[in-house]
Order: sequence, then structure tokens, then C-alpha cells
Amino acid sequence: HRGGRRRRQEVTPHMARKLYDLAGAEPERRFSPYCWRTKLALAHKGLDVDTVPWRFTDKDVIAFSGQGLVPVLVDGDKTVHDSWTIANHLEDTYPDRPSLFGGAGGRAVSRLINEWAALALTGPVARAILMDIYERIAEKDRAYFRESREKRFGKTLEEVAADPEGNVKALRSALEPVRATLKTQAFVGGDAPLYADFIVFGHLQWARCISPLQLLAADDPVAQWRERILAHYEVARSAPAYAA
Amino acid sequence: HRGGRRRRQEVTPHMARKLYDLAGAEPERRFSPYCWRTKLALAHKGLDVDTVPWRFTDKDVIAFSGQGLVPVLVDGDKTVHDSWTIANHLEDTYPDRPSLFGGAGGRAVSRLINEWAALALTGPVARAILMDIYERIAEKDRAYFRESREKRFGKTLEEVAADPEGNVKALRSALEPVRATLKTQAFVGGDAPLYADFIVFGHLQWARCISPLQLLAADDPVAQWRERILAHYEVARSAPAYAA
Repeated sequence: HRGGRRRRQEVTPHMARKLYDLAGAEPERRFSPYCWRTKLALAHKGLDVDTVPWRFTDKDVIAFSGQGLVPVLVDGDKTVHDSWTIANHLEDTYPDRPSLFGGAGGRAVSRLINEWAALALTGPVARAILMDIYERIAEKDRAYFRESREKRFGKTLEEVAADPEGNVKALRSALEPVRATLKTQAFVGGDAPLYADFIVFGHLQWARCISPLQLLAADDPVAQWRERILAHYEVARSAPAYAA
Repeated sequence: HRGGRRRRQEVTPHMARKLYDLAGAEPERRFSPYCWRTKLALAHKGLDVDTVPWRFTDKDVIAFSGQGLVPVLVDGDKTVHDSWTIANHLEDTYPDRPSLFGGAGGRAVSRLINEWAALALTGPVARAILMDIYERIAEKDRAYFRESREKRFGKTLEEVAADPEGNVKALRSALEPVRATLKTQAFVGGDAPLYADFIVFGHLQWARCISPLQLLAADDPVAQWRERILAHYEVARSAPAYAA
């Protein structure tokens, strides 16, 4: 893996950009789909960042952001949380760098993709990898994770994980609109990736970084698109992950 | 209803723009979701069009387009079919008129919304209004409609229609990503409508024009957004439709 996350900071040399990034028991195992969206957005804009490994129960560490979830980005004197808000902050703060949305229409319409992914993809990916997450998060996070997720799903983690084939099948089916889109264009963003790609990719990278499960068939156009995203962004390619 | 669809044609006065538009037994009952997308796109760009009522079985009438489905747009010396292809044709042919996509990113990302609507909305709307369509289409179309739709659903029309409450509930649930998007913006396209709005609106206008069923609760943000679209586009507002 990479020799460290500290890199030269080109905009505010006196204050490194900092991202609180969900980590597993191993500090370099970073798996949050929302943090991945932010890391790809930063890479797309060519902005360096120091990532700070953060665990689910480190609520006090990010209390300064006014809430308890990551990603939290500290960018100069601004603190921004929520992946969608961060993407908009980056687009507005660095307008001369490559666009995340490809124009005002792209930004507005990507909001629907953001909502669709939350509603259509989060559940299926989570169901498929829930026990793999549980096994790889820090010991101190396990009770929190079990309690919050069992409440969300109305089942024990073990019950959710009991039908791995069904869970994988449901996720592959949920990705059908993406698969259909990729019939006529290389990326959701067109000829090159945009933030709408990162929205979907984040969910697959979430699984890829925390679970050995092969979510996608090798010949799935979505798997091939995922490879193209990995080829574009070193930060995603070099992260500790499983082969599939 | 309106006094006729022939209007002044401002670009090629020698050759009126012409759209083959799905009609019911009543020639002014126009209900195809895909034709609605095209009619809104034309209105958005301020382009006049003569619409030609067309029935499912009038395959010979549009054989010149190389296929058998509407919308088919004849625009000067060009014939274009498929609502997505038509939208792109209009955007590329009339770049100085109001944009349908709000930039290259908007166009690319709208393609995913196009695919999502086909996969997530078409089935639920169709199930909810199938018998209403059957009762309002031309006599000569009924055998074709019954056979093709029963094959698609693997059930008789009557079986599909047997659970109206379940069908309405499924549609309302399928619209959840739109509902969530409308919490933070007035239209899918942002402050004003774009083609991504027409994609979703087309499906609701389909129902509105052919079925007395109240698909949306009055206090649903999606219903309120539909009203805003109707307020923007006279062609949609003035079409023969049911109140709901």
C-alpha cells in the first residue's frame, strides 16, 4: 500500500486540507461509500488531502462539525460535512479545476442520482456485506454497528447475511439503470467520469474495500466501468481492497 | 379543448414540423409518456409542431421511420424516432434555444435518469392504469394492446388491474428519489425544468391523460412539482386529461 497520506498541499500551505475518513480495525482499511465519493471528488479536482482514520464511535472527534457522521472535510477555515454538500463546496470553491458536474444542469440532475443511489443501492450493498463489515471494524465499534444496523434492517446481522446469493442478485438488479446507461456511454458523466460516477462507484468501492465477496460478474459492463474508474483515480486503485 | 394543433411554423415555413403522437379512440386523447417528453422538449425550445394522431396498429403510417413506435418526429428533411434520440436531435439542432440539459454533464447524467425511469417507473404506472388505457384506445388497437401487454406482464390485463391500491402504492414508492430531490430544489433540473423533469413528468402525464385514478396524494411534493410543470407548459396543461 501507499507510503502515507500526507502530501504537499498547494492551496493553503499553512493549513493542510483534512478529511475524517471511516476506517476499519486496520487504520488504512477505508470503506465508507460517502467518504469514497469525497475522495474521488478531491482527486478529480486535483486537490491534496490528509485523511484521518475515524471510527463510528469517535463522535467526539468530529463534534466540531456539529454532527456525528463522516465525511467531514476541513478545507482552510471551512468545515463541511455530508458528501453532497462537500461536492458542492468543492465545485463552488475551485471552479477553475475540472468540474464535478459538467454544468448547472449536471449538478441539479446529479442530485436525483444521489437520492436514487441512497434509496436503491445502499440497502442491497449493505445487506450483501454486512457481516464482512462487522468482522473488519474496530472492536470498539461493534456494539454500535450491530445495534444501529439491526434497528435499521429489523433483523439480526446474521439473519440479513443468511441469503448471500439473494443479496448479490438484488444488488446486480438494482444496478440495471447504470448497466443500461453504459451501453451508450463510457461513464455516467459521458466520455469521462463526473461526480455522478463517484456516487455509484462509492457504493461498489465500499464493498470492494471491506468484503472478499464478488459482487459483480467479471463480464458485467458495470464491473468494466468500475475498472475504468479505478484506472482514472490512483486514490481508489491503491487503497487496500479485495481483488473482486 | 384547444382549437387545433396547427400553428405557425417559424423555422422552415415550407415544411411544418410533424410529430406522430399516440392517440386514444378520441383523436385528441394523447397519452404516450414518450410522446409527452418530446412535446415538452419542443415546447421548452419554443418550437412549433403539428401533431398527428397515431394508433398502436398504424405501423404502416410510420414505416418510413424504419420502425414501428412513436414518437416519430419529422423535422425539415430529418426523421428522428425514440424520445431520447429526439431530445438530443433538438438540443444539437437548436443550440441557441433554451437548453434541455443545461450542459454536457446534464445531458450525460440525464441518460441514467432516462434508464432509471424506464426500469423503475414504467411498470408501476402501467400496472396502475392498464385497464383505463384499454378502455380508451381505439377499437382496432385493443387486440394488439391486450396481447403485447399480457405477454409483457405475464398476466391478463384484469389480473394486473386486480390490486389497484397495491399498484398505486408501488408507484408512489418508486417516485421516492424524485420526492427526496424536490426537498432541496424546485425541479429535477434545479430552479427551472430541464429534460430530466420531462422524463419523469411524461410518466405522470401518461396517467393523467388516460386514467381518472388519483395516482398522487394532493400533498405529495411530486404532485406539487407536477403542477409547477403544468404551469410552465401550456401544451401539457391544455391537453384533454382527468382532474387528478
